[in-house]
Amino acid sequence: MLDKQKLILESENAVTWIKKYVEENKSKGVVIGNSGGKDSATVIAMATKALGKEKVLTVAMPCNSNKEDLEDAKLVSNKFEVPFIEIDLAKIYNEYENTITRVIETNISDNSKTNIKPRLRMTTLYAIAQTMEYLVIGTGNLCEILVGYTTKWGDSAYDFNPIGNFTATEVLEIGKYLGVPDKILKKSPNDGLGMKTDEEKMGVTYKQIEKYIETGRTDDAAMKIIEKLNNSTQHKRKKVPIYTFERKKFLM
Amino acid sequence: MLDKQKLILESENAVTWIKKYVEENKSKGVVIGNSGGKDSATVIAMATKALGKEKVLTVAMPCNSNKEDLEDAKLVSNKFEVPFIEIDLAKIYNEYENTITRVIETNISDNSKTNIKPRLRMTTLYAIAQTMEYLVIGTGNLCEILVGYTTKWGDSAYDFNPIGNFTATEVLEIGKYLGVPDKILKKSPNDGLGMKTDEEKMGVTYKQIEKYIETGRTDDAAMKIIEKLNNSTQHKRKKVPIYTFERKKFLM
Repeated sequence: MLDKQKLILESENAVTWIKKYVEENKSKGVVIGNSGGKDSATVIAMATKALGKEKVLTVAMPCNSNKEDLEDAKLVSNKFEVPFIEIDLAKIYNEYENTITRVIETNISDNSKTNIKPRLRMTTLYAIAQTMEYLVIGTGNLCEILVGYTTKWGDSAYDFNPIGNFTATEVLEIGKYLGVPDKILKKSPNDGLGMKTDEEKMGVTYKQIEKYIETGRTDDAAMKIIEKLNNSTQHKRKKVPIYTFERKKFLM
Repeated sequence: MLDKQKLILESENAVTWIKKYVEENKSKGVVIGNSGGKDSATVIAMATKALGKEKVLTVAMPCNSNKEDLEDAKLVSNKFEVPFIEIDLAKIYNEYENTITRVIETNISDNSKTNIKPRLRMTTLYAIAQTMEYLVIGTGNLCEILVGYTTKWGDSAYDFNPIGNFTATEVLEIGKYLGVPDKILKKSPNDGLGMKTDEEKMGVTYKQIEKYIETGRTDDAAMKIIEKLNNSTQHKRKKVPIYTFERKKFLM
């Protein structure tokens, strides 16, 4: 982890960066998906500090989800006194799944189902953002990004992200510093897509990922998993491949 | 436009590139959104040449759309004898719009509505692709990309794209060379999202955009529009901004 002083300094710089980015893009505010987890809570805290309460619209989008996460989402929005709306996506999701299953005449795979939800959430956030002339602010931390624990064009699809260069532990520390409720900071990281925690699904812990990021090493077995995850998800971090040949072009 | 011989050569190279890309990613085939337009028709032709008919799944996704486009989509899939499925998204779209409108208590803006559809199409293509272990192949041409005439995380969100370095006219020539039906090649470019053609919506013609791309100039009024479009859509072509500071990192 960054030392405490440096961490506080960089979190303040990130808050200033949010303010500048919103101003430069002549945007009226930010929309954020509020999952009830610590990453979104910390970004809500940062955005509120940067822009003021009125310009941070928090949106909970349960989709056959755990009721407690919804309560936690409300707790966070109440704590920072920001506008909160709830859009239940279950009906849309179910209709979606049924329609596709009927046409392709085979069941959609479980991984595939899991990824539909973050994409519907992205679509929802953008529909609101564009109507209100807001930007969509992202909540992915450095650990998730580097092992690709994200849905392509789903939770990793947003206009800008203030915490993508901070590890999970650092985000938690920033959250603590900015007043995110203890109850939220003490939850196990969980993507809300199924019963298992993130760490159970990945097969490595955030501590192991952080040690690898910071030192280039961790336990042998964990190293293998982390490298494999990082490798197989390069396509999520790189530009989309386009067939290219040399040609004169006057626009970029 | 590239000279004819160079164009044919590069289109053949793009076909080889599709084959290689699918093999390297150990993918079983490609899924493609078939709009009935010339870009998707040309990519279907290229993919079929690269992979064979059985590995190219074409998907029409009407959403309160023009019936003729659906007929054209079928025409293309029949011509290349590739599997064709139709998934009507109107009911899902309407449910979506109603749900959001009810919660945010204001009408979704027209631009915002327009962008929901390509995002639902992307979500649909990925649900199918992931279930079948296929890749999603994109159909954006160089002109559209450079003026940003795309929906962020919608039609511009795919795994790889064989025509992103060819202008609209070049794509049409490749289509002609590969046997795309005349009826399709003669249609006005139209995104299928409303009554107007692409050119009417953009306020410039593809010819003007191509002249600008190739020579750095075109009519004065058109130049202004093209530069404005290009500028205001940089965020669609660049990596998503993340607040960054210098830190030691052993993963990328």
